[in-house]
Amino acid sequence: MRDLLPDEVLQRRHLLERILEVYERYGFQQIETPMVEDIDRLLGSEGGENEKLLYKVLKRGLDWPPPTEDEAIDLGLRYDLTVPLARFFATNSDRVLLPFKAIQTGPVFRAERPQKGRYRQFNQCDADVIGETSMSSEIESVCAAAEALRACGAGEIVVRMNDRRLLDSIVRATGFDAARVPSVLIALDKFDKLGAGGVRKELDALGNAVAADAMTSLLEALAEVRGFDATIALLPASVDEIALEDMRQISTGVTAALADLPIEFDPTLVRGQGYYTGAIFEIEHPASSGSLAGGGRYDRMIGKLSGRDVPACGMSIGFERLWDILGETLDLNAGLRRVVLLHARDANVADVMAAAQQLRREGTNIRCDVAVKNRSAQLSRFARAGFTHWAELIDGRATEPQSLVKEGQR
Amino acid sequence: MRDLLPDEVLQRRHLLERILEVYERYGFQQIETPMVEDIDRLLGSEGGENEKLLYKVLKRGLDWPPPTEDEAIDLGLRYDLTVPLARFFATNSDRVLLPFKAIQTGPVFRAERPQKGRYRQFNQCDADVIGETSMSSEIESVCAAAEALRACGAGEIVVRMNDRRLLDSIVRATGFDAARVPSVLIALDKFDKLGAGGVRKELDALGNAVAADAMTSLLEALAEVRGFDATIALLPASVDEIALEDMRQISTGVTAALADLPIEFDPTLVRGQGYYTGAIFEIEHPASSGSLAGGGRYDRMIGKLSGRDVPACGMSIGFERLWDILGETLDLNAGLRRVVLLHARDANVADVMAAAQQLRREGTNIRCDVAVKNRSAQLSRFARAGFTHWAELIDGRATEPQSLVKEGQR
Repeated sequence: MRDLLPDEVLQRRHLLERILEVYERYGFQQIETPMVEDIDRLLGSEGGENEKLLYKVLKRGLDWPPPTEDEAIDLGLRYDLTVPLARFFATNSDRVLLPFKAIQTGPVFRAERPQKGRYRQFNQCDADVIGETSMSSEIESVCAAAEALRACGAGEIVVRMNDRRLLDSIVRATGFDAARVPSVLIALDKFDKLGAGGVRKELDALGNAVAADAMTSLLEALAEVRGFDATIALLPASVDEIALEDMRQISTGVTAALADLPIEFDPTLVRGQGYYTGAIFEIEHPASSGSLAGGGRYDRMIGKLSGRDVPACGMSIGFERLWDILGETLDLNAGLRRVVLLHARDANVADVMAAAQQLRREGTNIRCDVAVKNRSAQLSRFARAGFTHWAELIDGRATEPQSLVKEGQR
Repeated sequence: MRDLLPDEVLQRRHLLERILEVYERYGFQQIETPMVEDIDRLLGSEGGENEKLLYKVLKRGLDWPPPTEDEAIDLGLRYDLTVPLARFFATNSDRVLLPFKAIQTGPVFRAERPQKGRYRQFNQCDADVIGETSMSSEIESVCAAAEALRACGAGEIVVRMNDRRLLDSIVRATGFDAARVPSVLIALDKFDKLGAGGVRKELDALGNAVAADAMTSLLEALAEVRGFDATIALLPASVDEIALEDMRQISTGVTAALADLPIEFDPTLVRGQGYYTGAIFEIEHPASSGSLAGGGRYDRMIGKLSGRDVPACGMSIGFERLWDILGETLDLNAGLRRVVLLHARDANVADVMAAAQQLRREGTNIRCDVAVKNRSAQLSRFARAGFTHWAELIDGRATEPQSLVKEGQR
């Protein structure tokens, strides 16, 4: 957990406003859900590892010690925004426009081992289309996320795309049993990190040397080519044709909307979570080792959580990662006029207030402060804190604000 | 706990943006603190009743059953923003401008018995000046809160003002022992609700009939007059002169900044919390039975929590109450262009995306939807949802958006 200082809050607010602006242009609407959910819902979802990191909240009015953990706990802190979204949709689907295009952002909580750059409370930013089977969901999800990242200042992004159905069919075409697919995907997911040789070792452990050979050769070949058609040419003949056609449509649609957005077909892209059922995406940026956004279609998840079968597709922006790479680059004082009004300690308070108010009416951010003896040190301090001007109360009136030059700019 | 629907989120965002804008003009800076704090800090503060409503978070990796509650619990959900502010200041005082003018807003959690209009997660919005003894803190705190409320649309507000030192001296002047002061204040706090007769009954229980008589007569007399001088004329001669002079200065300062803001001296104003040490304020609005904002000076509280003695003064805006009375009155679609682009189910997705993107470039919020047979019912649904225009995809291009008239406006 951590505190956020004033400059940090401004940076984060700025990024969030840009993201919301873009998503709203795409017809998404922001919702909010509580930080706390029923423990049974949090434990009954497909959260996997995240469930182990769950913060559990004690029931009130317990006799101590409670005999079992079950009897002691009824609530938990949310570890993602997907479980709350599914519950929200189950509760409120008659009160929202269908298909429901929701954006949700806020803190989630995971009891991770403390380490640098990992926090136990951090923000997620998810946008999802619920109740739509058409590929427009995928296209708008990708375009909105990409435009949002660009609006934040992340210009050099690249979209990578794949499809879970295609992956399944490739794994089976190389000779693995259907039952082995999940294990093979876990190995493939490490291709970026370990390379073909590393993946090969993991595949060998699955006890099918022929299939492991075929898959490794395919990975090596794929690493050599770029482009949709060249990539497809390398795939086994029996791969899922519908998935390929869908991907072609998505790629065409994304390019129709955002001609300058690079979108690449990457048959080795897996994305960790088990719940995807179709197209999957990641958006990468050269300044970030992990992806800045990721998502895809997950047609069975909302049904599992809400008891009602509905198609769904969404992207999640890695808000903390985005802030990490962009926060410091933002010049949030550009164009902003911030004035410090200095006055003597014994100045008439009403005079100070009236003078400050006059400046505020001119649309200025004003802070009043008692003048100290070392004027130049005091002004430097304010310049460093982002103030642009200073004025002084003389004979009950503010002098004309003068520019504060930041040290290093003189 | 509750979900917030898209319109509700927009209303709340709008109010929050107005509040932050005003506070920033006053030189306040937003900080953020985690939802969770150490249990010892939450239990060791002066939270009183709130501590009983604390949500406690279970330690990870416990052997079950844990022998004592102490061993089972290390964290709790914050029940207000003051404890986190004190901890923030203790941790970060060397990284912020002093005196520190902080605004903090976000959810707090209390395990209240569920009832209408009460939620277990709700937003608070606190602004505080830490490290300043001058009355400018009180004046700016009151002016900023009042301007923020007005910027949200709460025009008809009235500030009520009193001073804890003055209250103490009045209670003692009417004949009560110093030890009785807290009990008398609890009774006085009910004057608004119970009237002089009701307060009298509570005072009688304190076993000093002469003092109870004197206090009741004073309350009855005060209810008859308005204005600073008329009110002072009724007070016992031995009341705290410094407090009176401070109030006069604050009142003059507030009026110097905001000439049209009604500010009234009310010697019966108490405010519940025990930690105030000087001036106290409430801001009232005719549409709300409770006050919309309240606060005052609390010079010992931060020291108690942070281990370092510093003066402090602040106001808290009742964000949920403000939203209750204003949310529905906000017309957030005014001036906003929201277009639904209808297309055939089998339309070329790339065409739809390109046409939508073209409209988005014109700064419009666009939602694409499949056209249904009953066009007029579909358009009414969008009009009710706040859309202002509709267009249609014909031959791969969007028609010129036409105005959607809301039902009831025709």
